[in-house]
Amino acid sequence: MKAIGLMSGTSADGVDAALVEIGAGPPLVLKHLHSSLSPYPTGLRQRILQLATPPGGSASDVCRLNAYLGELFAQAALDLCRRARVPPESVDLIGSHGQTIRHLPIPRKEGDLEVASTLQIGEPAVIAERTGITTVANFRTRDVAAGGQGAPLTPLPHYVIFRDAKKGRVVVNLGGIANITAIPAGGAPAQVVAFDTGPGNVLLDLAAFRVTSGQTDYDANGELAAAGRVSEELLRSLLAHPFIKKSPPKSTGREDFGPGFLEEVLRKASSLAPPDLMATLTAFTAEAVAVNLREFVLPRMAIDEVVLTGGGARNPVLRKMVADRLAPAAPVDPDALGFPGRAIEAAAFAFLAFLTWHGRAGNLPAATGAGRPVVLGAIVPGRTRPGGTTAAGPAR
Amino acid sequence: MKAIGLMSGTSADGVDAALVEIGAGPPLVLKHLHSSLSPYPTGLRQRILQLATPPGGSASDVCRLNAYLGELFAQAALDLCRRARVPPESVDLIGSHGQTIRHLPIPRKEGDLEVASTLQIGEPAVIAERTGITTVANFRTRDVAAGGQGAPLTPLPHYVIFRDAKKGRVVVNLGGIANITAIPAGGAPAQVVAFDTGPGNVLLDLAAFRVTSGQTDYDANGELAAAGRVSEELLRSLLAHPFIKKSPPKSTGREDFGPGFLEEVLRKASSLAPPDLMATLTAFTAEAVAVNLREFVLPRMAIDEVVLTGGGARNPVLRKMVADRLAPAAPVDPDALGFPGRAIEAAAFAFLAFLTWHGRAGNLPAATGAGRPVVLGAIVPGRTRPGGTTAAGPAR
Repeated sequence: MKAIGLMSGTSADGVDAALVEIGAGPPLVLKHLHSSLSPYPTGLRQRILQLATPPGGSASDVCRLNAYLGELFAQAALDLCRRARVPPESVDLIGSHGQTIRHLPIPRKEGDLEVASTLQIGEPAVIAERTGITTVANFRTRDVAAGGQGAPLTPLPHYVIFRDAKKGRVVVNLGGIANITAIPAGGAPAQVVAFDTGPGNVLLDLAAFRVTSGQTDYDANGELAAAGRVSEELLRSLLAHPFIKKSPPKSTGREDFGPGFLEEVLRKASSLAPPDLMATLTAFTAEAVAVNLREFVLPRMAIDEVVLTGGGARNPVLRKMVADRLAPAAPVDPDALGFPGRAIEAAAFAFLAFLTWHGRAGNLPAATGAGRPVVLGAIVPGRTRPGGTTAAGPAR
Repeated sequence: MKAIGLMSGTSADGVDAALVEIGAGPPLVLKHLHSSLSPYPTGLRQRILQLATPPGGSASDVCRLNAYLGELFAQAALDLCRRARVPPESVDLIGSHGQTIRHLPIPRKEGDLEVASTLQIGEPAVIAERTGITTVANFRTRDVAAGGQGAPLTPLPHYVIFRDAKKGRVVVNLGGIANITAIPAGGAPAQVVAFDTGPGNVLLDLAAFRVTSGQTDYDANGELAAAGRVSEELLRSLLAHPFIKKSPPKSTGREDFGPGFLEEVLRKASSLAPPDLMATLTAFTAEAVAVNLREFVLPRMAIDEVVLTGGGARNPVLRKMVADRLAPAAPVDPDALGFPGRAIEAAAFAFLAFLTWHGRAGNLPAATGAGRPVVLGAIVPGRTRPGGTTAAGPAR
């Protein structure tokens, strides 16, 4: 089956799209064919981030951006088809993560019920209508409904791409939020350990914007951090954040490590020079990964290689700080293992759509905390039935 | 197939649930088995209405209420199974309309795109997880994506229930918003004429709350209106609202006839005694139905019977005002035609879920304005596959 995965992360800089080929196996195989990034139009990123940062944004914004992002996700899929010279009719499925607007997996009392919730937007009906391709979306809600955190959902795809008979590997995804997937050598999916470790780029991006008075919205090449020195005192206090040493399963978002958290840091560290602040926040991001690996992974498996992915992997300062802390495990590029780093997260949702279409569970309860493995997502019928027949719906 | 329909209307008073049996035909048959209303817990109605009335409510509210309403919709389905003494495992499908929070079908410029949108909440992943039943939801977004108003979607189910070889019938649904489905004698689905006519109970409820200073939130038995006299002057000015004489396809919501509209009316009619105001608004609701029928239906077909449904059909003053204006067509109770009035809208979504599951279009482009017939909704897999096999997903 050919499938397209669509994803926009916490940083909201655009739609990552990946075209993959999936072999049903056993063993399951996920092969990269083509991928691309369609940046959001100017101004949209700020509008999304405003909506995604509590208390920001109204129900009207949710309604309008849900449809608008659906259009942009559809365009990203069609653009990818053009670039890959693959007609959309030959693509069986789209798996769309959407854009997270809220992630509230900790249950809250509503009447006599405990209710957890999460909200991703980017209307799949628009994607299916524009592309004609059956689209699976809203993956996180079902895991949350089953008692899970709704995240991380990428461990199973990470496992399919990076498992190795001889080497223990940890995938460190330095996205908006950082998460890890640890895969023991020759291990089974049930032995995978995966969770969010803390902030990724979200905090560094916000801080870069702030210390440069808006001249940049990220620390390009880690240059700001490279010019500074880590404040051990501030670093210690940052690492005291309860999320960092919390036992998995655990997941986090902009609610914990967004603008509110940065304001707190700035109050604490008002005397720190901007480059030192950037260096310290970068070290915090790396150290949070390292602490979590030492605490919750290494007691259970040996790790030989560290696969660095996500936007943060392109920041050499952050990259080096992570690699130094995880030595003697060797840092490796996913590209060197045959899968372009930028495409992994999007490809993961193509793979999850494949599982959903075949009625197979996509979550790992040990990773998300769900009560059981569940079939994730909602299926919006395209004009062609996955698998190649022409019936519109899934039941014929 | 056995299916459950779940619906909460613009009035947001609770979840209507209907268990139906659907015969795939031809001709398609929709048979009522059992139905119930599960009122929302105290306070929730106000919370929903606040969120559903612009600019009210935040993205956090959308996220939380989406999950909470999913729980309540699931409970309503399970309660209905208990009352009907039908095990949930024997129900093939749930079709859930959800709760409309925004309905913005008129396209708005977003970048270089024209984007229309609509937002219903009541997370289907929660419904599918709690009930184990495959759940179809978010019916309106696909029709909007195909260029339609996303409403009305009930014409096809109305047609299946109320078509007659000898009699032309119009279904007048006096819900929060009033809509009509006109079915010519012996006609085909493509000849059905259906659209929203204007306000239904939403305006009367708000006005009742206002003129009684919150002592009641609806005009029970039309007693307030019965005590007043219609102001012809105000009535004329209300009927000048551009929506009333607008050509179909057309749909409306609380955005047009909610609190904002009521405030305008109150400013214009500040000298009117409360019972006269209620009588005039009731007449407005009835006259909007009549004007639309005369203008857009009767030139195309003869109508012999008026099937009165929706909460407003239980208000004898509104009922009589509508019936008087539509004479000589005879008012009939849906119950007398074998389908309980209260269950029709919920049953409609069970029927639409059935169509979706079978890959069949559920919209009538002439009614919604969509560019083509489309398969509506998103399918969330349950634990049992519709049709009785045990695979979790739709593809096996």
